[in-house]
Amino acid sequence: MRIVAVKEKTVPLASATRNSSIGFGAMTASAVVVESDVVRNGKPVIGVAFDSIGRYGHGGLLRERFIPRLMAAEPERYTDGNGSLDPNRAWDVLMTDEKPGGHGERCGAVGLIDAALWDLAAKLADVPLWALLGKIDGRPASAKVAVYASGGHYREADDIRLLCEDIRREIGNGHRRFKIKIGGVGVKDDVARIAAVLALLGPGMTLAVDGNGTFSRDKTVAYLDALAGLPLAWIEEPVHPLDYELHREIASLTPIPIATGENLFSRDDARNLLRYGGLRPDRDMLQYDVSLSYGIVEYRRVLADLEAHGWNRARCAPHAGHLLAAHCVGGLGLGLAEVAIEQTSLFGSLTARFAVADGIASLPEAPGVGLETALPFAQIFDGLLN
Amino acid sequence: MRIVAVKEKTVPLASATRNSSIGFGAMTASAVVVESDVVRNGKPVIGVAFDSIGRYGHGGLLRERFIPRLMAAEPERYTDGNGSLDPNRAWDVLMTDEKPGGHGERCGAVGLIDAALWDLAAKLADVPLWALLGKIDGRPASAKVAVYASGGHYREADDIRLLCEDIRREIGNGHRRFKIKIGGVGVKDDVARIAAVLALLGPGMTLAVDGNGTFSRDKTVAYLDALAGLPLAWIEEPVHPLDYELHREIASLTPIPIATGENLFSRDDARNLLRYGGLRPDRDMLQYDVSLSYGIVEYRRVLADLEAHGWNRARCAPHAGHLLAAHCVGGLGLGLAEVAIEQTSLFGSLTARFAVADGIASLPEAPGVGLETALPFAQIFDGLLN
Repeated sequence: MRIVAVKEKTVPLASATRNSSIGFGAMTASAVVVESDVVRNGKPVIGVAFDSIGRYGHGGLLRERFIPRLMAAEPERYTDGNGSLDPNRAWDVLMTDEKPGGHGERCGAVGLIDAALWDLAAKLADVPLWALLGKIDGRPASAKVAVYASGGHYREADDIRLLCEDIRREIGNGHRRFKIKIGGVGVKDDVARIAAVLALLGPGMTLAVDGNGTFSRDKTVAYLDALAGLPLAWIEEPVHPLDYELHREIASLTPIPIATGENLFSRDDARNLLRYGGLRPDRDMLQYDVSLSYGIVEYRRVLADLEAHGWNRARCAPHAGHLLAAHCVGGLGLGLAEVAIEQTSLFGSLTARFAVADGIASLPEAPGVGLETALPFAQIFDGLLN
Repeated sequence: MRIVAVKEKTVPLASATRNSSIGFGAMTASAVVVESDVVRNGKPVIGVAFDSIGRYGHGGLLRERFIPRLMAAEPERYTDGNGSLDPNRAWDVLMTDEKPGGHGERCGAVGLIDAALWDLAAKLADVPLWALLGKIDGRPASAKVAVYASGGHYREADDIRLLCEDIRREIGNGHRRFKIKIGGVGVKDDVARIAAVLALLGPGMTLAVDGNGTFSRDKTVAYLDALAGLPLAWIEEPVHPLDYELHREIASLTPIPIATGENLFSRDDARNLLRYGGLRPDRDMLQYDVSLSYGIVEYRRVLADLEAHGWNRARCAPHAGHLLAAHCVGGLGLGLAEVAIEQTSLFGSLTARFAVADGIASLPEAPGVGLETALPFAQIFDGLLN
């Protein structure tokens, strides 16, 4: 197996949404296609991948470093003894002459190529990615994954009424778990939003809240006081992702589960959170983003580390509602996948075709990740496919 | 003051050198020019900056995010009440809509523009950068900075003889402090190299060694055993930069000073090293790279943090031999600046014109950073200047 071309493009994700950290008006993401020399039905087998959201596209890094490095490598450097594609070996090629530490953008560029290589590997094996991952890990894997519906961004007008409409609609669509933002308004108004949503939930349904990593210590304590006693599934990223000491303090102050990790992009950083963050393996959630954190090769190292630290991988709920993360949930035995409530934007529509029943989504049956089955596939990959 | 243009180019730093972490054959760096609307002697006043080394150029990120963001900002967003350029305010413009955490590449792109803006600010004030920094910080500043000569990469043949030639020549050039690599050969051969250099040093001269962040725990312990009793100024980056726990253990095992931090690229990461790394304020060295870590605006925050942790800024020796770091040493009261022994490559030649006497270098007297006085200036900025 030889890689004959790697193509990329930057896709605008312009969206009017804001969280308490940033606006998304100028947000972008990258799409990647890896073309192999294997021909089936008269066409080359390709791997495709689309970025996670929040860190902008990786076009410059892909063109400057990672695509040239992979294209310059002889196939024996990214295949196994049988000549089959081995994403683990390809990862080493990608990281040649990269210094240790400094995990911000290259982790997203590498993760994107890694994702396309896994899609390609699963297609070459003619199985869905979740099944390939389960086989490699030697554990039961499933196309059925527990999901939560994520949204609750703030609107300029009619905010609570529109939020409740969203939640009602998603209950009708089969969702049972929900997450909304906090921190975009004052704590009192946030409590009113939370109460309005909680009033809509039936038995077994849950609500989590998300602060997007921006709260000071005092603001967090004020929120914990105001939220005390509310039946929240978790409070997500109340404080800065790299302030482990503050995580430790917050965790000591509340029985509410804490979820964090989406802005830590490597095994090194993931491990430091476990070592220093004071998180509780019986309840807290780890949300490392697979695609933005050097991809599946690195994510499997993260899983090994967390098990060595006494954590169960069921505490993992990878950031961002994309198919790759959902395959990791189904294939690697993780806890939860994220699905966007807002499905009109390009990123939100990636999981719009998920069939959800009683909080469980069914992954596509197509070989690979099944991005081809996603609503915006043609738009995202326009110009990259032959 | 209005910024009328920001230009960048990628400069190959191809070098045959290797450290124990990576090869530098495909290494690149970015050069940036910021042009203002202030005209003096018939020409616009410009700020210039050149990258630090080891993390590749930042062309993609500069073009995709940071230059457009700065160019789209109205001047009141990056000037003070008097209409003068304020790099602190410009920094906030650059970091608009950037999520917290994830410090790898964008920190280098932002740091490079930050460096050019400080060069511009000092030129507009008609003073060398070290003097501007001293004035802002309200502390004694000086054009005289203590330096160390850094090199000792491995050669294929005649390694120790050529190494000793280097050291003898640099003693003749006025250097008193030296640093060489370790880890590229076995511990016994490294000890022989170290002994050969130590034998050349006169009274008051010092030698440090650099492992480039690649040693395992066991390898580090073996080196500490072999180096015990040798009068080393420090052992640099023996272990992975983000493994704070291992730093803590190593620091407990040796009286030799430890130097680290060049692969931590933010205030967040710098603080975690101080919190968790077990480093000793009476002897260990902090080597955060100014330019690769969001520039001088962020570096001043790092200094405030380390003083809050009981450290003296004289323990700081910023990574990489470039003029910007040397100005920070002179202007912000840091301990040591780095100067490359190897001055034939483009990066090595940046500090080739430093006048060094008794281990003290004199910074250029020109306004700004004085990159224009550096040997490879014309080569680096060719095509970027009007």
